[in-house]
Amino acid sequence: MKFSCERTSFTQAVAITGKAIASKPSAPVLSGIYIKAEADNTLELRATDNETSIICKLTAKEGLNVETPGEAVLAGRYFQEIVRNLPGENVNIDYNYQEKTIKIQSGSLKYTLLSMNAEDYPQIIPFQGDVNFVLSDKVLRNLIMKTCYACSNDTARPIFTGCSLNIHENTIAMAATNTHQLAVQNATLNSTYNGNLSSTIPSKVLSAIEKMLVSDVPTDVNISLNSRQIGFAYDNMYVATRLIEGRFPDYSRVIPLDFATRVIMDKSEFASALRRINVIASTSEYKSVKFEFMNSSVRMSASNPDIGYSEEILPASIDGEDLVISFNSEYLLKVLAVMETPQFIFSLNNSVSAAAIREVDSTDFTYIITPIRTTA
Amino acid sequence: MKFSCERTSFTQAVAITGKAIASKPSAPVLSGIYIKAEADNTLELRATDNETSIICKLTAKEGLNVETPGEAVLAGRYFQEIVRNLPGENVNIDYNYQEKTIKIQSGSLKYTLLSMNAEDYPQIIPFQGDVNFVLSDKVLRNLIMKTCYACSNDTARPIFTGCSLNIHENTIAMAATNTHQLAVQNATLNSTYNGNLSSTIPSKVLSAIEKMLVSDVPTDVNISLNSRQIGFAYDNMYVATRLIEGRFPDYSRVIPLDFATRVIMDKSEFASALRRINVIASTSEYKSVKFEFMNSSVRMSASNPDIGYSEEILPASIDGEDLVISFNSEYLLKVLAVMETPQFIFSLNNSVSAAAIREVDSTDFTYIITPIRTTA
Repeated sequence: MKFSCERTSFTQAVAITGKAIASKPSAPVLSGIYIKAEADNTLELRATDNETSIICKLTAKEGLNVETPGEAVLAGRYFQEIVRNLPGENVNIDYNYQEKTIKIQSGSLKYTLLSMNAEDYPQIIPFQGDVNFVLSDKVLRNLIMKTCYACSNDTARPIFTGCSLNIHENTIAMAATNTHQLAVQNATLNSTYNGNLSSTIPSKVLSAIEKMLVSDVPTDVNISLNSRQIGFAYDNMYVATRLIEGRFPDYSRVIPLDFATRVIMDKSEFASALRRINVIASTSEYKSVKFEFMNSSVRMSASNPDIGYSEEILPASIDGEDLVISFNSEYLLKVLAVMETPQFIFSLNNSVSAAAIREVDSTDFTYIITPIRTTA
Repeated sequence: MKFSCERTSFTQAVAITGKAIASKPSAPVLSGIYIKAEADNTLELRATDNETSIICKLTAKEGLNVETPGEAVLAGRYFQEIVRNLPGENVNIDYNYQEKTIKIQSGSLKYTLLSMNAEDYPQIIPFQGDVNFVLSDKVLRNLIMKTCYACSNDTARPIFTGCSLNIHENTIAMAATNTHQLAVQNATLNSTYNGNLSSTIPSKVLSAIEKMLVSDVPTDVNISLNSRQIGFAYDNMYVATRLIEGRFPDYSRVIPLDFATRVIMDKSEFASALRRINVIASTSEYKSVKFEFMNSSVRMSASNPDIGYSEEILPASIDGEDLVISFNSEYLLKVLAVMETPQFIFSLNNSVSAAAIREVDSTDFTYIITPIRTTA
């Protein structure tokens, strides 16, 4: 195998593909990146951890020139580090089948790296699912960003470590919950799906996809899924992952229909104050901050008997009953970080019922949080 | 104790003083910052880990207004975090002697923090040493920056964890070594000292001082020392530290007087290439990179039998004998990072003798490195 390629395209393809390498690979060959150069002047880079797979393609458009077709598996970590820092405009790759070494040359620099057997590398084939639809990169990125942080990290209950994707007619929704909080983002599909589809995608993969969707030009993402896996194809990239087994809870039942109190607040002002109160709140097990909504203001406070007490009063437009309620400050800080409107609506019922956070002027996003029951 | 102060000055004073707090304080009270407000409208902040002490003063110039004099010791970590994020223009501090609590108010924010007994806090008194001299902040910063990285971290040999300060007539020199490398920076004193003075300052304190010397306006630093301690006074700050006991080795003997080969190289180009070769070199115990100086070029290479081989050839202006020699790449990367000239001079004798690195157009800085003896 021998080819040359424009450096920046090659570097980007290696960086993207490398995201599928597990930190502790289950087999030595899975610590590498598989590369295949073909006679039709295409290059494929592949990586997989057996759950999630990524394929990246390069062509003449990316300055690729294949001299001798072939395949090899390159040590992932060193190869990625080397490729990130190449000095030249182009990179030349030459694989020696006898020595099982790969020569990387760019500008004045030459590397020779030991490589692994390409025959041992698992096949990765883009699959055709039962359901196929298209989302713009912007919509997909928003679905992920608005929900992913609400997942659980507890692998003992795998269903809560994923985001639930739901399609019904021309509506798509993504939802995530750790049972104390729930985030749901809706969007409109260009096509219509007859019936109800629901599957749970590992949040780790979605976070990686969110970081890859950085194109300046609006790009379509082609999504294909069946009951066991889902694939995302866009530009020259392809990501496939196994779905999480099990039934995601029916979250629509935990979204209250009515609220006794509606509060409109400035998002940045509220987040800054909450971060200050959090110096004390973060020292307690439940990160509890007490909110007193009354007299056109919200009084936020936290206390720890060993450290001290903090409080701040902010103006707020309150419509409805006065209310005292406590929430986990770190959950709130995360949802405030992803909302895009300068103001938000905090909707509440009483001190023991779930509250909702929504953006002003949009009903596509809903965040539900369970209060902390305090003895005070 | 009750006072108010302009927020940014107060925040900066707390941040600077906090640098003297040990990560694992030897007594609970040493985890705090001592504050004393006096009737003449001055405020003193103090912190110490019993080795190093910092005092910071604030006056009416910094917007200080003392209402009731007094003293208190505030929990360091939380106090620093709170003060970093205050929302108002000013900060109001009110100490309650009965409750042993301090109220901090700024803008809409109020904190109440438990505090510790001020009587338990050790006295910190600026001392008058036997030798006193003045350096500009720029010169002191340069002495520290050019040498500090060459120290050892090995506390089993404390003398090598410090920088040696040497004064003779109107010359001041700072030197650091870990026995494999040596860095020496000279500067000229405005005054003349009769005799030879040599003392070893903990590098940790010097690094902290380097970070504090950030004034835009040229500032004089008043330095006072005796055989046991050294004090640095500038602006409203004072830092004192114990000196390291023991005799710093006579480093002048390890600086070669003549060299067989002199190489002039571009610093950024050389550092970039070395970082690339370091991907392989950093995987070996001695971080060994082989340098072949010949034919108006330097060939740099590193190899690890389990990973692979890297090489890069750079143009170099070589005056003298050809030479093959190996050095620790990470030592070289650190010295390259502190040099300020676009080109540097690499002076060498043979593959087993110490080499020197100097800046072009200045003899004030000398860096000596011992080669790695290789079997090849």
